[in-house]
Parts: sequence; structure tokens; C-alpha cells
Amino acid sequence: MADSSTGPADGPMTPGADFLQLRIEEAPAGGRSDWLAERLRHAIADGRLPVGSRLPATRSLAADLGVSRGVVTEAYQRLIEEGRLAGRGRAGTVVVAAPPPARNPAPVRPVPAGAVFAAPPGGDVFDAVRAAPARIDLSPGVPDLAAFPRTALLRAERAVLADLPTAELGYGDPRGAPALRRAVADRLARTRGIRADPDEVIIVAGTAQALGLFAQVLRDDGIGAVAVEDPGSLGARQHLRHWGLRTPPVPVDSAGIRVDDLRSQGAPAVLVTPAHQFPTGVVLGGDRRRRLTDWAREGGLVLEDDYDAEHRYDRPPVPALRSMLPDRVCYAGSVSKLLAPALRVGWILAPAAYRDALVEAKRYADLGNALVPQLVLARLMESGAMDRHLRLVRRRHRIRRDAMIEAIGTHLPGATVHGAAAGLHLLITFADRFADIELAAEALARGVKVQPLSWHRVRPGRPGLVLGYAASRPTDIAEGVTALGEALRDLLRGRA
Amino acid sequence: MADSSTGPADGPMTPGADFLQLRIEEAPAGGRSDWLAERLRHAIADGRLPVGSRLPATRSLAADLGVSRGVVTEAYQRLIEEGRLAGRGRAGTVVVAAPPPARNPAPVRPVPAGAVFAAPPGGDVFDAVRAAPARIDLSPGVPDLAAFPRTALLRAERAVLADLPTAELGYGDPRGAPALRRAVADRLARTRGIRADPDEVIIVAGTAQALGLFAQVLRDDGIGAVAVEDPGSLGARQHLRHWGLRTPPVPVDSAGIRVDDLRSQGAPAVLVTPAHQFPTGVVLGGDRRRRLTDWAREGGLVLEDDYDAEHRYDRPPVPALRSMLPDRVCYAGSVSKLLAPALRVGWILAPAAYRDALVEAKRYADLGNALVPQLVLARLMESGAMDRHLRLVRRRHRIRRDAMIEAIGTHLPGATVHGAAAGLHLLITFADRFADIELAAEALARGVKVQPLSWHRVRPGRPGLVLGYAASRPTDIAEGVTALGEALRDLLRGRA
Repeated sequence: MADSSTGPADGPMTPGADFLQLRIEEAPAGGRSDWLAERLRHAIADGRLPVGSRLPATRSLAADLGVSRGVVTEAYQRLIEEGRLAGRGRAGTVVVAAPPPARNPAPVRPVPAGAVFAAPPGGDVFDAVRAAPARIDLSPGVPDLAAFPRTALLRAERAVLADLPTAELGYGDPRGAPALRRAVADRLARTRGIRADPDEVIIVAGTAQALGLFAQVLRDDGIGAVAVEDPGSLGARQHLRHWGLRTPPVPVDSAGIRVDDLRSQGAPAVLVTPAHQFPTGVVLGGDRRRRLTDWAREGGLVLEDDYDAEHRYDRPPVPALRSMLPDRVCYAGSVSKLLAPALRVGWILAPAAYRDALVEAKRYADLGNALVPQLVLARLMESGAMDRHLRLVRRRHRIRRDAMIEAIGTHLPGATVHGAAAGLHLLITFADRFADIELAAEALARGVKVQPLSWHRVRPGRPGLVLGYAASRPTDIAEGVTALGEALRDLLRGRA
Repeated sequence: MADSSTGPADGPMTPGADFLQLRIEEAPAGGRSDWLAERLRHAIADGRLPVGSRLPATRSLAADLGVSRGVVTEAYQRLIEEGRLAGRGRAGTVVVAAPPPARNPAPVRPVPAGAVFAAPPGGDVFDAVRAAPARIDLSPGVPDLAAFPRTALLRAERAVLADLPTAELGYGDPRGAPALRRAVADRLARTRGIRADPDEVIIVAGTAQALGLFAQVLRDDGIGAVAVEDPGSLGARQHLRHWGLRTPPVPVDSAGIRVDDLRSQGAPAVLVTPAHQFPTGVVLGGDRRRRLTDWAREGGLVLEDDYDAEHRYDRPPVPALRSMLPDRVCYAGSVSKLLAPALRVGWILAPAAYRDALVEAKRYADLGNALVPQLVLARLMESGAMDRHLRLVRRRHRIRRDAMIEAIGTHLPGATVHGAAAGLHLLITFADRFADIELAAEALARGVKVQPLSWHRVRPGRPGLVLGYAASRPTDIAEGVTALGEALRDLLRGRA
């Protein structure tokens, strides 16, 4: 191991031999300490050695430069006397003071609380929401992150690193690690009714990348538009449009997407969320499912975003559309809702005609996902740890959902709740007419993050809020919904 | 933790409640065991439950379905009697036999040894090389993977998981984790002479993704061509072309890219490898560096692929071009040569005018790199573990390089060695005229993988081989070069 033989004095922040690009040939004979001291002053002054950074041990730096240790010791000593460095015994020599920098680094853009909802949502709207300060975050789209199985993950990582053949640390298959493709195929068969050969599975960096890859391949195939559900995910729409596709809207009602409207709309492809429509939470009904299947058999192409299908509480499982229609469905799933979005791992299945083009697209996107996290995930799936995790969070999610519904009944009595039988969020709509963006802004001013339904609409409709419950404690949910009730009353009072 | 409370009988392969999409409503009253047994037979027959897979514990499945445990026990018992399942005590119930599947899965394409070099290299050429069987792999581009710091990585991961705030497991900043952007900025200052604010750094999925992002942004800025070094990386050229850029070649000589030819070529941008040109290994000379800088100051844009600059043996460090020309250089670096390509992490710096567009491009590529590996890498950089690793592999690389040069002197006396003072590979060229692709094919037939220089050429030139030494043991290097000598003699004899 590279890191087991050196002692603490040679420890943190010891740079390699390229330290400061020092070239000892530039030093005048007999003036090497002066020269080194001056190079160090420079590096401290221009920020290459910021306050707190640790210098190499005198022994190592002397060896790297091919000078005697005394040359380095003297240079360090000089800067210690000048107050620029301090000796910290076995912890080494650190920078303690620097002149003010020549220019100030650009600060990370601060987001004023109101600004998030001041303009129509752009590409960075979710960054802005994330950056906005708030006490309680009821944004949809994340599972119970406090339950993230850190111990199981670390255990799997230890096992993976112990077993991994050295050669696999090189460049890999752009389609993903065979072990994960097998685990995903097994899992899709068991839990989503999909029969897929591991060879058909392509591992991707989450659903966002999946949509980009699908879009590139569809566009190359002459498809210029993918119809979207309305209401439907703002983020998904932004991604498809970034990649050059038009996204004509098709209305969603209580049975899911209206397939007759899709037909008359005329788009060659459609993006759907059949198991738990985002954001309304409706399940694509049996009759609609048949109609959509007919449309696809006649030549339509379906993109299926199976984003949170494994989270359900009061309803039977709904098999993926892909399970019935493998030749007409591009399928995408991910671990974002199963474990955590920060893992950035997902998988796609596509009709055979698109498969090679998708592998090409993935290759030129990034040469394939990182290996170790794929193997760790395969192990979590195969060991049963992922299923145990899902059982655990399902119980917790249900309690949180019930807490949210109860709080809505108390504090937002005029709201109608939709789609709460499954998933990680629910939708509330209001009979009153008002701008839900203003309600979301009011809520944020009270320290509560929510998404206005209108963000996810293309055509206007009833106001509403999309409320995530899975990632918040019941007490926070109750407090957040109470604040929403106050915000709504203030908003309506202000307009009266 | 999700995984600490359940016993072994509930262990590996216990599926979640969506097991086989079972819908108990479909079962006839009084015939639930029959129904369940039939569903299980089906799943075993069609491959959703392959041989070796473990069924849920009777207790869990009964709870999930809302039936008595006896219903499940009886169904399992029936299939045990049929020879489809077997009880394994506390280890659970597993599938032991299945009828032959309806269709055979498509096998992973086997690559015949000769096929790799039979046609001009396409987009999947490096996959084909990887898949070809060989005893000794002298392909360039990978460091000593056997030295990969597995222990340090695992230790860093444990620390990261212990400290990570729960909320960070959600969606993150597309630019990357602040901790890694800070660590990269510090490292670039220390080892590459680049002064960058962490806010300028964008974390990406390796240099391949960096090239794709640069290409997208340049194209949107009206740039249709990026000149490339000739010889220069085939892979880099493929990536730029995939993203819609032309790649006119500019000759490289012993001082690096010929800037006069670049000027007369007329492309608005150029991709260069100034610190250690790929594949020739030359350093961009002082005069050329000034000329290139002048060209850039007059409006040219430089893409700097700083792929292996920290590996050097017999020469002083060469600062990055970016350090002198921040407003005209798009810079890319990665951990592929520092640690391992399988990690898929890199970083870019760009002129301020391109920065927002690059963040957008990264957002729509994948919403940003996975978080935990970024934090682990930041810790490896900040703790000094990365530097210790580099010191270790530098010693090993030098020994391997020396072994290769010695073997070449003995077994390929007609070859000229280039670019061996730094990096992970060297180039040999030959005065004889022959097709180096045939030599590479001969070598592969003898179990040795090498890359022909002509793959990396646009315009014809002397034959040669690009030989990686960093990832092979000295004995393997000696054996591989011996085989190359035999292959060359056979090739030239066959032609005589």
C-alpha cells in the first residue's frame, strides 16, 4: 500500500516532487536557501500556498530538489521568523499568514430568498432552490436520506476492493460492469416484471443522463419531438429540450396521460411515468395502458421514466410498460429514489434497434460509469441489503406520508390531495384561484421549501403544490404544513 | 442502519414486497397456494427467478401479500417436491432447477485476435483491444494499477461516510463538491503552477467527458474545427469528431506542435498535450511555447490535455500552459493517470467567457459527478495519500521504463526510443518501411498487446509502436519486448 509506511511528520499535505514547480537549476550557486525562501514567499503571496497549508517535510523536499536538508531548513526558518510559516512539531510546517490576495475570488452566487420564484424557472432553477436557505425542505424527489445504508455501503466497498482484479482498474466497458448489469437485470425481473438479458442493460449516470442519451439517439433517428405529460416533470422537459427535442404537452387526467390527445398531437414519441405519474401520482389505468400500447405498436415510441415505482403503500405493484412492450419502450430507472440521488447511477433498456447507438452515445459521454460504485451497488442488490433498506424506508415513508396528509387536513382544509398511495411525494391542488408560485415564495420566506405545481405545467391549470414527505421527519412535516397554511391565508387575505 | 437488524434467514436475495409483481387479488379464494405455486413456476420458467436465486422468507412474503404463512409454505413445499426449489435451512429456499429458457441470451461479442487490426480503427477499437485475449498488455495510458491505494481509499471512504451531512445525499451542485474543487485548485497550484479559484473548477467524469463538454460549448460559440497534433491521440480525435468538430492535423516535431503550420492551417482552436505530447513524448519547447502563446493572444483558443504531467523521471517539471494564459486555455486533467482510469473523475478550467456554458453542459450531461467518490478523492489529495502514492509509483514506473529501454536495445536494436523522460509510455519508431499495424497484429498473435503508431497518425509517416510500461512488471516487459523483436523479424522476413 502506498500509504502505510510513512510517519506523521510526513503526513497530511506533503506534496509530490512537483511542489511549486521548483527548478533547482534556477537557484544561484551558494544562494539556494535565499532562492527557495523567495519562491515560497511568492507562492504564499499569490495564493498557491494558502494559510493553513502544510509544507513538505524538509527531508522530502531536500531529496526531491537534490539539495542538502540544511538548505530547506534554513529557508523554512527564515519564513518562520518573518511570521509567514509556523513549525508545528511532528505535525510539520504550516502557512500562518499571507498578504492580502491580488484579487478576491468570486463568491458562490448568493440566492436571495425571493429570487427563486421571481422569474420563470430556467435551467438552474433547482440549483437556486437548493442554495436557498430554509428550515424545512419539502421539495419532492428524494427518499429518506437519513436512512441511507452507510454501514452496508462501506462493507460492500471493502469486499469489492478486496476482490477486484487489478486489470479492471483500467478503462472499462462503456455499457457498465457485467456484475451490475446482471444484478439490475435480476432486480428488474423480480420487482418490475421486466425480462431483460444483462447484455441489454446499459449503466448510466442517472435518469438525467438517460434522457440525454435517448434524446441524442432519437434525434439521429430523425425524431424531432417527444411529447410530455402535462403536468409533468419540469426537469425532464428541460433535459429533452436542451438536447434539441421539442416537447409538445399532452394532458394528464385521473387515469393518466390522455392517449387520444397524444394521437391527435402527432408526436412520434412520448415520455411517460406510468407507475406513478409525476407530479399527479396517478397510475396509468388499464384502458389507457392498452391504448398507449396500441399507439406504440402502430409505430409510436415510449420513453418510460420508472423513477419511484418501488415505493408504494396502499396499492398493488404496477408492472413496467417495458415488460409488455420491449420493442417499443426505452426504459430508464435509477438509484436516486431507491438509495440517494448523490450516487448518480441508473440503467436503461432500449429496443434492439437503438442499442448500439446508445452504447456509442454513452461511450462519447464519459466512457462509462466509474467501476467501484457499480460493483458496490451490485453487491448491495445481490446481498439483499438494498431490499432490507427498502423495507425499512417504506415503513418510514408511510408514517411521514400519513403525517403530511393529517397536517394538510388540519391546516390546508381547502386542498385536495392526489397520488399519495405510492412514491415519495404527493400533490395538493386548490379550488381557489391564485398563483401557486406566490404561495411557494411565501412559504420560502417562512423557511419552507416546496415546488409550485405550475412549474410542472405547460398549459395553465389549477394552482397546487408538489410536496415531498419522504426525506423529512413527521414533526418537520407538521411544522412545514402549518407554515403553508399560514402562507396561504396571508396570500388570500392580501388579495381580498 | 437498514441492514443490522435482520437475521441470516432473511439474508441475501430477499426481494422487496414487489416480488414478482404478485397481486393477491388475482388469486381465487381458497386457491391461493395453487396460484402462488403457479406464479413461481412461471417465474422460474421464464428466467425471472434463475437457478441459484433465493426466495423471500415465508414470513416476509406472507406479510407482504397479506396471507397466512401457511399459504406460502405450502406453495414452496409443492415446488420443492417438483424439484424446482430446495430448502437450505436457515439459508432459505433457493431455485435449483429450471426448464431450458425460451431464448438464449446474446453472448458478449467475442473478438478474434486478428480482427482488432483488420480494419481502420472505429469508435469501439479500444473496446476490441481490451476484449482481445493477451498474456502481456503494453497498451499505453494506464499507471501501475497494482499499486492502487485500496487501503487508503477505503479509509477515506469510511471517514467521508462518517462525516457526510444527510442533506448532501440529495441532488448536488453540477460543478462538483466544494471540497474536491478546493483540493483540485490547491493541487493545481502546487504541482502545475496554475492559480485557480475553487469556484472556477468544474469536476467532470474524466478527460473524455471534458472533451465532449468543450466541444459542445465551442460549437455553440461558432467554432467548427479544433486542430489536433499529428501524431496525436486517436481517442481524443474520435471524441471531438463525435461532437461535431472537424480535426485538421498539425505536424509535431521534436520541439512539439509546429505553430507556423497551425497558423497557416487556420483553425480557430487547437488541442495540445504540451507537458508530454501524446504519443511522441516531446515537451513543447520554450520557443514553441512562446509562439503558441502569441497565437492564442491573437485570438486562438487552446485546449490543454494535461494527461500525465505529474509522472516524470529525468527532466524538470513543465508548468501547464494554462498557468501563463488563463484567458485563452481550456484545461483538462484527471485521476486516470494519477490513480486509475476506472475512477472516471477529472476537472476542467476554462476562460471566464465559457464557464457558465460549461456548467450548463455538465448539468445536462449528468447533473454532476457522484458525490462520495469526489469527497474521497478530496481527502486523498488533502491527506497527502495521493502524493505518497505518486512517490511510490514514480519509483516503480522508472524501473519499468528502464527495463523496457534495456529490452528494446537488446531485442529491437533498429528502433529509436522517444519521449521516455516522463509519462507512462514511450514511443519507438523504425527506419524500415513496413505497416506497423501488421506488427501490432503479429504481436497480438504472440499474446502481446501494443498500439501501432499509425493509429495515432492522420498523415502517413514512419512506422512505430506506442508502448506502455507503467502497468507491467519488468519481467513481463522483457518478455513482451522479446516477443515484439521476434514478431518484427518474422514480419520483415515474410516480406523479403
